[in-house]
Amino acid sequence: MRTFKLTIEYDGVDFHGWQVQLNAQNTVQGELEAALSKNFKKKRVVVIGSGRTDKGVHARGQVAHFRMKTTMPTDELMRAINHNLPSGIVIKSVEEAEAGFHAQRSARGKSYSYTILNRSYPSALDRQRCYFFPRKINLGLMRSEARAFLGRHDFASFANVDHSRTCETIRTVRRLEIKKRGDFIVVTIEADGFLYKMVRNIVGTLLQVASGRFPSGSVKRMLKEKDRRSAGLAAPPEGLCLERVEY
Amino acid sequence: MRTFKLTIEYDGVDFHGWQVQLNAQNTVQGELEAALSKNFKKKRVVVIGSGRTDKGVHARGQVAHFRMKTTMPTDELMRAINHNLPSGIVIKSVEEAEAGFHAQRSARGKSYSYTILNRSYPSALDRQRCYFFPRKINLGLMRSEARAFLGRHDFASFANVDHSRTCETIRTVRRLEIKKRGDFIVVTIEADGFLYKMVRNIVGTLLQVASGRFPSGSVKRMLKEKDRRSAGLAAPPEGLCLERVEY
Repeated sequence: MRTFKLTIEYDGVDFHGWQVQLNAQNTVQGELEAALSKNFKKKRVVVIGSGRTDKGVHARGQVAHFRMKTTMPTDELMRAINHNLPSGIVIKSVEEAEAGFHAQRSARGKSYSYTILNRSYPSALDRQRCYFFPRKINLGLMRSEARAFLGRHDFASFANVDHSRTCETIRTVRRLEIKKRGDFIVVTIEADGFLYKMVRNIVGTLLQVASGRFPSGSVKRMLKEKDRRSAGLAAPPEGLCLERVEY
Repeated sequence: MRTFKLTIEYDGVDFHGWQVQLNAQNTVQGELEAALSKNFKKKRVVVIGSGRTDKGVHARGQVAHFRMKTTMPTDELMRAINHNLPSGIVIKSVEEAEAGFHAQRSARGKSYSYTILNRSYPSALDRQRCYFFPRKINLGLMRSEARAFLGRHDFASFANVDHSRTCETIRTVRRLEIKKRGDFIVVTIEADGFLYKMVRNIVGTLLQVASGRFPSGSVKRMLKEKDRRSAGLAAPPEGLCLERVEY
């Protein structure tokens, strides 16, 4: 039995999120399992991801693993899987991992990017890769407010309830960068792990502070209150992209 | 009567090209005319573009004009048109032009970009914005060969026949740049005008030289022969984007 680590890029627009669901067709996990089942002529090959992503959320570096008895070389395997996948999912690398490797449990950290388009008119070419936010943003305020997220905190105010996930809400944000590229603002967040909708809640709240809806200093108060109702609205899925998983 | 100049971005994947056609729904020109007709409550408002683009070809800076008796300020007009357009087309600016302005006849030059993805596996997120070309490319050879296109030439070998267009095949290429950005190669071509499929035939031929299908020096020979059959294959539409029209 060998363990394979996959690095995956996908276009969130095409799928109902990562996880196989009873009533949803076209999930990324489902497509990957179907491609592997076909390749290995098995009834089901279980693929475990580093974590779920919601409908509309993209990935440039999602990681998953599966275990299989096979002699196929990894480069041949990569070609074979890509051949069986729809064009909205691409395997970027296949590596053989040690037997104990687990895409979710072995993960040491993740980074996400969130892209905002901040001008008066939307984009035709990038409309499914960014959140169109036409209101005026104070970028300096957004950056100074963002500093409050850095470090180890209880992120209960920034987590949506998901009963299938752990109740533990303490996380460490290692990096939070806000870069301006023309009319786009790209927020990059790196942490040891993320709660459900945490990045979208952080970015939505920062945009509400930066556009005057909340006063500066609000993030500190929200973190202290540990109550989802105290923080801002979630930013929509189309701006979000899972960039990297660290092991 | 006022003349309005529109700068337009569109996602070529969503439309059957620029030009209104008898049997094709969803053309960019058709959608623009419909949006303007709705706004001005007219049966038809004619929109003239700087030139056609084929199905699948994108634009970041297409230009068009229309004439209308109206007192509406340009910024209000821009919002109103964008409101009536599908999300794959966005008006980036509306300017009032002098009475004689004609988007096609007044054009002094155009630039296009062509994006190639050169690696062994495709992209999920950029698959509709680039041409996936997995064969090995000699970039130095591609650049040196490209120099033969610069200047004033008869481009008959690089033009597909289109009976609705002029027979004059002499054009001046002012700039041809080939830039590498990670696994992407971006070709930018600027000329006083382009023949039908000229950019795609140029890029397709350069890729055939750079990947060893034609020997170096082929472009010079092809230009001399003035015969479409002597040049290489057209690169596909998804990599092509009309960047700018000069007046």
